[in-house]
Amino acid sequence: MQFELISQIESPKDLTALSDTQLEQLAAEIRECLCSVVADRTAHFASNLGVVELCIALHLVFDFSRDRLIWDTGHQIYPHKLITGRFHEFPSIRQRGGLMGYPNPEESPYDLFMTGHAGSSVSTVLGLKAADDLQGQDDRKAVAVVGDGALPSGIVFEALNNASGLNKDLLVILNDNQMGICPRVGGLAQYLDKARIAPFYNGLKRDISWLLNKVPVVGEPVEHILGQFKEAMKSFLHGGMLFEEMGFRYVGPVDGHDLHSLRRYLEMVKDISGPVLLHVFTEKGHGFEPACQDPVTFHTPAPFQRNEDNEIVPVKPGGSSPAFTNVVSDAIHSAMQRDSRVTVLTAAMCAGNKLGDIRRDFPDRFFDTGICEGHAVAFAAGMAKSGLRPIVDIYSTFLQRSFDQVFQEVALQNLPVTFCMDRSGLCGPDGPTHHGAFDNSYMRCFPNMVMMAPGDGTDVEGMLAFALEYDGPVSIRYPKASAALIKRAGVPVELGRSEVYEWGEDGMLIAFGSLFANCVEAAERLKREGLDVGVINARFAKPLDTETILRAIDETGFVITVEESTLCGGFGSAVLEAANQAGVRTHNVRRIGIPDRFVEHGEHEELLRGLGLDVDGIVAASQVMATRRWLVED
Amino acid sequence: MQFELISQIESPKDLTALSDTQLEQLAAEIRECLCSVVADRTAHFASNLGVVELCIALHLVFDFSRDRLIWDTGHQIYPHKLITGRFHEFPSIRQRGGLMGYPNPEESPYDLFMTGHAGSSVSTVLGLKAADDLQGQDDRKAVAVVGDGALPSGIVFEALNNASGLNKDLLVILNDNQMGICPRVGGLAQYLDKARIAPFYNGLKRDISWLLNKVPVVGEPVEHILGQFKEAMKSFLHGGMLFEEMGFRYVGPVDGHDLHSLRRYLEMVKDISGPVLLHVFTEKGHGFEPACQDPVTFHTPAPFQRNEDNEIVPVKPGGSSPAFTNVVSDAIHSAMQRDSRVTVLTAAMCAGNKLGDIRRDFPDRFFDTGICEGHAVAFAAGMAKSGLRPIVDIYSTFLQRSFDQVFQEVALQNLPVTFCMDRSGLCGPDGPTHHGAFDNSYMRCFPNMVMMAPGDGTDVEGMLAFALEYDGPVSIRYPKASAALIKRAGVPVELGRSEVYEWGEDGMLIAFGSLFANCVEAAERLKREGLDVGVINARFAKPLDTETILRAIDETGFVITVEESTLCGGFGSAVLEAANQAGVRTHNVRRIGIPDRFVEHGEHEELLRGLGLDVDGIVAASQVMATRRWLVED
Repeated sequence: MQFELISQIESPKDLTALSDTQLEQLAAEIRECLCSVVADRTAHFASNLGVVELCIALHLVFDFSRDRLIWDTGHQIYPHKLITGRFHEFPSIRQRGGLMGYPNPEESPYDLFMTGHAGSSVSTVLGLKAADDLQGQDDRKAVAVVGDGALPSGIVFEALNNASGLNKDLLVILNDNQMGICPRVGGLAQYLDKARIAPFYNGLKRDISWLLNKVPVVGEPVEHILGQFKEAMKSFLHGGMLFEEMGFRYVGPVDGHDLHSLRRYLEMVKDISGPVLLHVFTEKGHGFEPACQDPVTFHTPAPFQRNEDNEIVPVKPGGSSPAFTNVVSDAIHSAMQRDSRVTVLTAAMCAGNKLGDIRRDFPDRFFDTGICEGHAVAFAAGMAKSGLRPIVDIYSTFLQRSFDQVFQEVALQNLPVTFCMDRSGLCGPDGPTHHGAFDNSYMRCFPNMVMMAPGDGTDVEGMLAFALEYDGPVSIRYPKASAALIKRAGVPVELGRSEVYEWGEDGMLIAFGSLFANCVEAAERLKREGLDVGVINARFAKPLDTETILRAIDETGFVITVEESTLCGGFGSAVLEAANQAGVRTHNVRRIGIPDRFVEHGEHEELLRGLGLDVDGIVAASQVMATRRWLVED
Repeated sequence: MQFELISQIESPKDLTALSDTQLEQLAAEIRECLCSVVADRTAHFASNLGVVELCIALHLVFDFSRDRLIWDTGHQIYPHKLITGRFHEFPSIRQRGGLMGYPNPEESPYDLFMTGHAGSSVSTVLGLKAADDLQGQDDRKAVAVVGDGALPSGIVFEALNNASGLNKDLLVILNDNQMGICPRVGGLAQYLDKARIAPFYNGLKRDISWLLNKVPVVGEPVEHILGQFKEAMKSFLHGGMLFEEMGFRYVGPVDGHDLHSLRRYLEMVKDISGPVLLHVFTEKGHGFEPACQDPVTFHTPAPFQRNEDNEIVPVKPGGSSPAFTNVVSDAIHSAMQRDSRVTVLTAAMCAGNKLGDIRRDFPDRFFDTGICEGHAVAFAAGMAKSGLRPIVDIYSTFLQRSFDQVFQEVALQNLPVTFCMDRSGLCGPDGPTHHGAFDNSYMRCFPNMVMMAPGDGTDVEGMLAFALEYDGPVSIRYPKASAALIKRAGVPVELGRSEVYEWGEDGMLIAFGSLFANCVEAAERLKREGLDVGVINARFAKPLDTETILRAIDETGFVITVEESTLCGGFGSAVLEAANQAGVRTHNVRRIGIPDRFVEHGEHEELLRGLGLDVDGIVAASQVMATRRWLVED
């Protein structure tokens, strides 16, 4: 039987009954599970292959029914799900109604936090530990597993600093696979690279170094001299000084695919008091050669098949029209050719944002900060101040991490930074941590911020050109979806001007963003049913095209505002505010968008349908509004 | 003449003409300026006394008409303002229409960014440097001055990491005075303390260490051994390994009050290529003994007078009713006595949030994370998950720094974390970086978040008690202002229930938060003028008391929503949304609050008056609405 062992594991407690050989087999079965799922659908892959042994070892050494474990970011949670009794549901992963692709406390008590954003695991685990201690449960161990990709996130350092100050018994495991999604960058990357090639990376020296950590130090001033000497010797022996200086005991490095060593090291660090960092070397994609060779592609590969030799067989290419991401990336590339002031910043999302060509063609003007969104935005602000036109290309949900820098470094200074907010709206199978559900609201509260959203692919180039000429901050939001190309006469992008696609006597659909396409289709269908419904491509949420929008409210039967963002304070609210300000009645206005709850994972189209934002939903909403109007007029 | 030299300095270029003795005199004059200002009004004081020599030395060694300088956070900008031609305007500092207490590009080209939040200087300076280099101006030097209080902010590490990766010629000066506003905390603090007491902190060894940095390393594998040895020796000699491991050249420490040494060191590091960290020891309050003795109080002291011996003479205690900050802090103290699950977290604002008694009485349940708001919130989430009831006590504007953690770690998990958002609304003389102008909007977009604001001091205890019993996240906002005590029958705090203070046929004022007091006074005055205007203390912005509020809209002449937060998406918008949803007309609703622009600094009452949020303004708005209603009814 292919999944002989894993299919029998109902909880991590079942692991203890397995022999070393069986554990190796279990690891192989887990890898096979991972391969079979990603052959079907896009899912996190290489990072999961890399932590199979680490996951098994952790569950063998600790008891996470009481002890605390957080996998930072959470995309590498698959082996953990398989070990904690979710093998039989595993084929449903990332599908609507199925398992999440990230930890989910509703699935299992072994998942403590629903995560997806990088870096906060050390903080949450420290919180769990501090609280457990306060409640007299200081026997509960606490472990955070942080990838080297997440390590540079500022919050990790904030947490290490605090953990060290509190001197809590905390185990931070640095899962060092030399990668974020893309190759890691920055000074820390170089530092970790040094550790990897250090000549003393072998068992004997490791143990000497370990021993040295235990050298007793006594009295003054001998303590000082000895202490200094110890520090110096440690540095001579291994590369953990950075963490030691932060107040952590550094242990390692250890081979993350050697189950025996891993268990030995984990047993060793389990009972050390005070904060410990265990440095584990893993290989992203381990056990599946194509993924090891190209871990960037295999971070979240498109569906693929394997032949008998475990080689990749290409599957049919997907999609018809290009995705917004590609359209934007092409437009940025063109802009960079025209205008030497344009620079591009990404926070480790070179692959996700399709910036590979830009990195290749404009290496001097392309900046990957790593998963450091706060820094990326302030860094861009500095560039803008010096006269450049930086584009910050970050997913909507991750831009939340730089909310304060968008405020202070950009909006407050009124600097020309362009935010390309990819994955705005419902991002699909990644679920609630990745949906860009809030940017219409959170961007709108800042003075000076101009907010745009392309109605379709043809809007993109003009909007980007506008943004790069505009003398202040601009945000452009677009979803993870293919970009429709809606045929119509070109209307140039002008500040605060919407595009009236078609006027309708019975009512108007006003779309901010890519749901414009659904509105156009809905209006066509409504027309066939005898309702004269028009469509406005709002283009701007701030400043709003008050004149056109208020005329629609005033002169047509109804107005429905349509946005793929929360209804609390978003585009539709801006319309209500403007109408109220102008003394225009709004009883014939309805707002549709993302409701005030967290939306589950699923395919983008499925999710839109569930929220009434697909063509059917917009048609239905229009019909209701049309009826309502007739009642009023009776 | 008391200000003989400083009064003649029109730009930093004038410094070069001064002799060493004159420079010392200049430093003394600057300190005298600082003392004379803070005798008049609350202002940042001790930190400014501490950087006088550093500021002079920087302007002597660099030319900041071309070179780039950012003082991190910016509260220590006073000597810089005095040196860059603002001596004559200096007495106006922190007053409406006068100089800002923070850097302000509108005042001087020497102020590059308007700042106030900690930690982003390294990022912005790196951006300036990267952009200058790209534009062929790589002769422009770039300097960030970061305090040890700001150092643990995650964004500093993000920036150090990026600067090191890019290998930019960047000078980061660590202004190490062993303090944030309160004594520094965390592992980094201990690390820096070690550096300070290192036995080799003297000139000779410094120079040896400096020399050692220049040891040439050649070829493999000798390079490796030598490199390791060099690293080890450096550690033996000084405490800069943390920064060296991050890829920075560490230089120092140097005495920050020895102008001669400072200049020598700055000249030395000025032309080093690659990123350099210069460690400068300063004394907070230097040159004014009472401030050195008590730098926490003298961070931003209340007005004081000096006698001939330069001793402090107490000035009359201010204020009548206690500030909201005190009322909240007392309520927290009581709650902690009642309920052992309650913990308190602050991000270095123990003094500002008046948490001293709590720290003293509940040391185990009080956590100061340092200026690490992101971590603080995620840390609290971990505690809540483990069963505690953490209170995160952070200024509204600084909570923006943990926007993403409020989202992911708290709201998404629906965890019972209570946010006490002090300084919500217009915080007064600190100005735009410190106003809490956005929280009504940014909190409202998150599902699960309950949003409250006490109408007066008597609301506080009930709200806090409610929050601590509620099984999900709650935010409570209140301003930096004295808490009125409005006499009325006690109405218990219930989820989503407002308090009808008085019903009025002609119209209703609905206040979310402390402007309730102004509304009560306005209503009384209006009544004397013959208008029957009532008042609702909204208490909740989310969930909204839709029933009561819609009844007010429907049944009375007009409704004015009153909030001390931006009108873009705030409480008033929630009212419009609810009315629209329910099909209730809103032509008789007006929203008043903070408009969509950045509001200058000034006294709280002055600022409210300027925005029509004082009693007069509310009366006037009511009169307009009453007239409007009559026109409609004609």
